[in-house]
Amino acid sequence: MNEHEAYMKLALSNAKAMKGQTDPNPLVGSVIVNHNRIVGVGTHLKAGEPHAEIHALRMAGEQAKGGTIYVTLEPCSHHGRTGPCAEAIVRAGIKKVVIATLDPNPLVAGNGVKILKDANIDVVIGVCEEESRKMNEVFNKFIVKGKPFVTLKAATTLDGKIATASWDSKWITSEEARNDVHVLRNEHVGILVGVNTVIKDDPELTARIPNGRNPIRIILDSSLRIPMDAKVVTDSKAETWIFTTEGHSAEVKSELEQQGVKVFVTSGLERVNLDEVLTILGEQSVSSILIEGGGEVNASFFQEQLIDKLVLYVAPKLIGGRKSPSFLAGEGMELMADAVELANLEIEKIGPDFKYVGYPVFQ
Amino acid sequence: MNEHEAYMKLALSNAKAMKGQTDPNPLVGSVIVNHNRIVGVGTHLKAGEPHAEIHALRMAGEQAKGGTIYVTLEPCSHHGRTGPCAEAIVRAGIKKVVIATLDPNPLVAGNGVKILKDANIDVVIGVCEEESRKMNEVFNKFIVKGKPFVTLKAATTLDGKIATASWDSKWITSEEARNDVHVLRNEHVGILVGVNTVIKDDPELTARIPNGRNPIRIILDSSLRIPMDAKVVTDSKAETWIFTTEGHSAEVKSELEQQGVKVFVTSGLERVNLDEVLTILGEQSVSSILIEGGGEVNASFFQEQLIDKLVLYVAPKLIGGRKSPSFLAGEGMELMADAVELANLEIEKIGPDFKYVGYPVFQ
Repeated sequence: MNEHEAYMKLALSNAKAMKGQTDPNPLVGSVIVNHNRIVGVGTHLKAGEPHAEIHALRMAGEQAKGGTIYVTLEPCSHHGRTGPCAEAIVRAGIKKVVIATLDPNPLVAGNGVKILKDANIDVVIGVCEEESRKMNEVFNKFIVKGKPFVTLKAATTLDGKIATASWDSKWITSEEARNDVHVLRNEHVGILVGVNTVIKDDPELTARIPNGRNPIRIILDSSLRIPMDAKVVTDSKAETWIFTTEGHSAEVKSELEQQGVKVFVTSGLERVNLDEVLTILGEQSVSSILIEGGGEVNASFFQEQLIDKLVLYVAPKLIGGRKSPSFLAGEGMELMADAVELANLEIEKIGPDFKYVGYPVFQ
Repeated sequence: MNEHEAYMKLALSNAKAMKGQTDPNPLVGSVIVNHNRIVGVGTHLKAGEPHAEIHALRMAGEQAKGGTIYVTLEPCSHHGRTGPCAEAIVRAGIKKVVIATLDPNPLVAGNGVKILKDANIDVVIGVCEEESRKMNEVFNKFIVKGKPFVTLKAATTLDGKIATASWDSKWITSEEARNDVHVLRNEHVGILVGVNTVIKDDPELTARIPNGRNPIRIILDSSLRIPMDAKVVTDSKAETWIFTTEGHSAEVKSELEQQGVKVFVTSGLERVNLDEVLTILGEQSVSSILIEGGGEVNASFFQEQLIDKLVLYVAPKLIGGRKSPSFLAGEGMELMADAVELANLEIEKIGPDFKYVGYPVFQ
């Protein structure tokens, strides 16, 4: 690890520590070094508060002059609450700026760098780039596409089943893995299931962790079949949003709305239009959703290539059964050569179970 | 690692190096130490040749006297080609014997130790026991039960599929993983598939590795539907044995036999009796088989609890499909709580794929 990487890692650590509290802003960290001494560290704490560079510059004070600033994201060029960070860096007399990643928004990427270079500041781009990009994968998609980052979560036996042929699924994975799912839920703004899951399991869909926030419960329900006594309708533990089609009953819709449930109507009569769901969620500032559907809901997102990330828990057990369902139903691919590869697939042991995390590469 | 373990590891290394060449005998290694110097090492090379202890004693010569012998398996007490090893150890003046595992055959286990103890030799049992037991897992079952050790091998996508809905399966895993399968085949005496696999894929079922031996090709075919022009019938690359039922056609049987195929008849009319298959294979000195069946053949062994070991290759890709088959079909378990756990499950990366090895614990 070279000198640049060592300082950038510190900036990344400070950025990551704020996970979950900067929404809808990205995680950003910054370190200022002068004559081989760290003279300032900063991190973005909360939307509406100063950016990481501003905190670091304030800590450094006069010692920023002639120094090098490390920042995990390109300094901004826009006039927000604390002004353009690039200009603040210029004013502070910084001589060198080391950046992990450019702004993910192609419309403004490079603008901050241009301000710096125009002021004759030396700029280095791409130190710890992948780590920084991954840290803000949700923000990076949301800011560019205006749609939530979509993570599909499933839990299977080693023979690839999410339930027995009689649809029994309690429990596939260990308590450790199930606790990990609650952490995962807590990190997402919304959690999405199909109405069949609600009808069959009547789940709460909450994140049971101390001081955790509950994600918005998002239900796909093309003809508003959701039971009025379902926990997600009655328990008030979190918001519940239902996406339906033009074929829904206006009466049921109004009954649900009286219960405090939001109902969104997508075009068409048969199936909820998933792309519209994501567009509407984006408009509602939902930057990330976790899909915990059955095989058919999962497959519909898979077939429309709308999944950004897969988190799969695999338990060391076998149940068999030609009718036992898998986590991706639907029609599936015609040929093995058309299989969707997973990039950057990592595996981790959680209790007795295995956790895979990867990124589908749709063709 | 203590002193005993260090010497036993050397004995285990020498034993393991003979993998595949001692059949039907177990792998056994031995080390003799005297005054903190290794004075002899031995390993069993081949059935009919001296046991490991004899080789080590010969190498040590006079220096065995007063020494300690390490041996991965209890020294034998029977009068074979080189006499009972326990008696040879006594005659050589050894003072201490360190053993990894007792003889797996309960009828003779402890007999060798008794000879040693009766001669006032100090005996330590259980050093590196699990490693030694695992090394001879095939022999341990075969010698006790008289039936082959059964390994089920499968290759799936990350979503648990062995083929697409149209039964395309070329290829799920990488070349590295497929090469690993050839090594696995080479380590088994027989390889078993159902006749549907022969009809669909017309496989050679050979181990394509340099200097490899080809396993016996074992086909389950309840009504002798195998095509007469199947490669396993015509290519003479390895023996082919077919197991059928009393409902077979005598004419087809004799036609197959004329092609050099052995046909075994199990009781019943509908399905091949799997327990009888294993008994017959044991009688024919087949100590290990690798099942590479489709989902139904695999599931029939699974449901009858006849699988000793699972080797599963998982490719980092998704294909989906509610009709895409998994590696365990059949009826499957009714409840998730009845799932069969896998003991000592280990995972390893092979190229881009993951290889799981574990031992089903049937209730």
